[in-house]
Amino acid sequence: MKRMERVAALINILTEHPTQVYTLQYFCDLFGAAKSSISEDIQAANNSIKISGFGFLETIAGAKGGVRFIPDISEENIKILQKEFCERLSEPSRMVGGNFLYTSDIFYDPSIVRRIALIFAKKFRKCEANYVATIETKGIPLAFMVSHYLNLPLVVVRRDAKISEGSTISINYFSGSNDRLQKMSMSKRAIEPNSKVLIIDDFMRGGGSIVGMSEMIKEFNGKVVGIGVAIASIEPEKKKVDDYTSVVFLGDISLENKNIVLKSNENIF
Amino acid sequence: MKRMERVAALINILTEHPTQVYTLQYFCDLFGAAKSSISEDIQAANNSIKISGFGFLETIAGAKGGVRFIPDISEENIKILQKEFCERLSEPSRMVGGNFLYTSDIFYDPSIVRRIALIFAKKFRKCEANYVATIETKGIPLAFMVSHYLNLPLVVVRRDAKISEGSTISINYFSGSNDRLQKMSMSKRAIEPNSKVLIIDDFMRGGGSIVGMSEMIKEFNGKVVGIGVAIASIEPEKKKVDDYTSVVFLGDISLENKNIVLKSNENIF
Repeated sequence: MKRMERVAALINILTEHPTQVYTLQYFCDLFGAAKSSISEDIQAANNSIKISGFGFLETIAGAKGGVRFIPDISEENIKILQKEFCERLSEPSRMVGGNFLYTSDIFYDPSIVRRIALIFAKKFRKCEANYVATIETKGIPLAFMVSHYLNLPLVVVRRDAKISEGSTISINYFSGSNDRLQKMSMSKRAIEPNSKVLIIDDFMRGGGSIVGMSEMIKEFNGKVVGIGVAIASIEPEKKKVDDYTSVVFLGDISLENKNIVLKSNENIF
Repeated sequence: MKRMERVAALINILTEHPTQVYTLQYFCDLFGAAKSSISEDIQAANNSIKISGFGFLETIAGAKGGVRFIPDISEENIKILQKEFCERLSEPSRMVGGNFLYTSDIFYDPSIVRRIALIFAKKFRKCEANYVATIETKGIPLAFMVSHYLNLPLVVVRRDAKISEGSTISINYFSGSNDRLQKMSMSKRAIEPNSKVLIIDDFMRGGGSIVGMSEMIKEFNGKVVGIGVAIASIEPEKKKVDDYTSVVFLGDISLENKNIVLKSNENIF
């Protein structure tokens, strides 16, 4: 096997499985090569990955050591994503009345979802979460891509308890967006007690459903270690949660106001 | 820039954006290299990608031509995935009563979802779909990964019409699993008229919800060009749809029957 083929195959394996640690021995066996050669290959692979701008390799020392691919997104590409995201969100045809925007096409579009997910994967890389959690429905692809990049299981909180979820814990919470009491439920099998959870969602107005999810996680003796929302509304300025990260901010979208205002968050990191 | 770095960066860019066509000129500009060099790099990249087993490069001739990464999964890896999938599904603790299994952890686990998605991406590579569609909730990550691999937008059919979906079309259908009439709705903005749609879902028993989705797609003058379900139940043998592909088959799971029977589908292709 030629050197170049080995390096490229190594890149392919690592980038297909973000954040997952592979031992040097794994590659020695796979390629029939010595550890010293594999070490050099990893160095070459890292240089190449850095050029493409999608991440970098991290080597972990010690008995459980190895190498893994950490996905990344450059500041420049974050700005490009934010600009594109704002432009798409500000299309007037998205207004559906009642202070709501049609955003499903964007949150189900792999080309934009994977870049927003990269931002959150970068932001919450070191938060040591055991799970990524979201509430159905529109944030699921985004949360799933974050869980893919961080190599974590995803948990989806449901609006209604389903029989296929087994025993569930349900809580009621107040949603400002809908101006009413809502219910959410989560399977008792969904997370281990005392887990650390990263919450990812598509949209936050007052923060009611995020507070609801935090309450839910507390029911499992879990801890919220990060909150990422793709869009946060500018109003109300005072949210029910303080420590969250949004990619963009959305202004008033009442129908009288034909102009949808969007701003990039300049302080993600 | 060294040859190896160029090849590796090329692999990285192409594999991060499955099925998306890049012109040779794009790489010439990016790397400051001649077309003849880039052509050689693509050849080398293709050899390396094939070795890692995750896909291959396809070159497209003509003015709109270029190169793209086609994700793939080997027969051997399909068998490994099927075996693992069957083993996890047959854990007795999954039985939640009423002929239902708890499967959320599996369908929200990136390591298994991406491999099932690769099988469907391979199966339906040439079906010329314009959209991947699913019905909320558990199949969303799987359908989204298929849409990522095929570079297509995803459409999610909702159980209830939501205000943020704008005008919707709703239909009623009979669900055998729940033994009752159910409703599904889809935003009028979700798909263009006369589109070809690939349906992906986590589970099929009688096929009621798949028939419902097909009816829905007909309301948009669309056409179903493929149906992929991760799990199909063995009973009832006669489904409401004929032409579907499942990864595994699931036997009777009534609580009296402590043994959950699973079989790999040997005829996916």
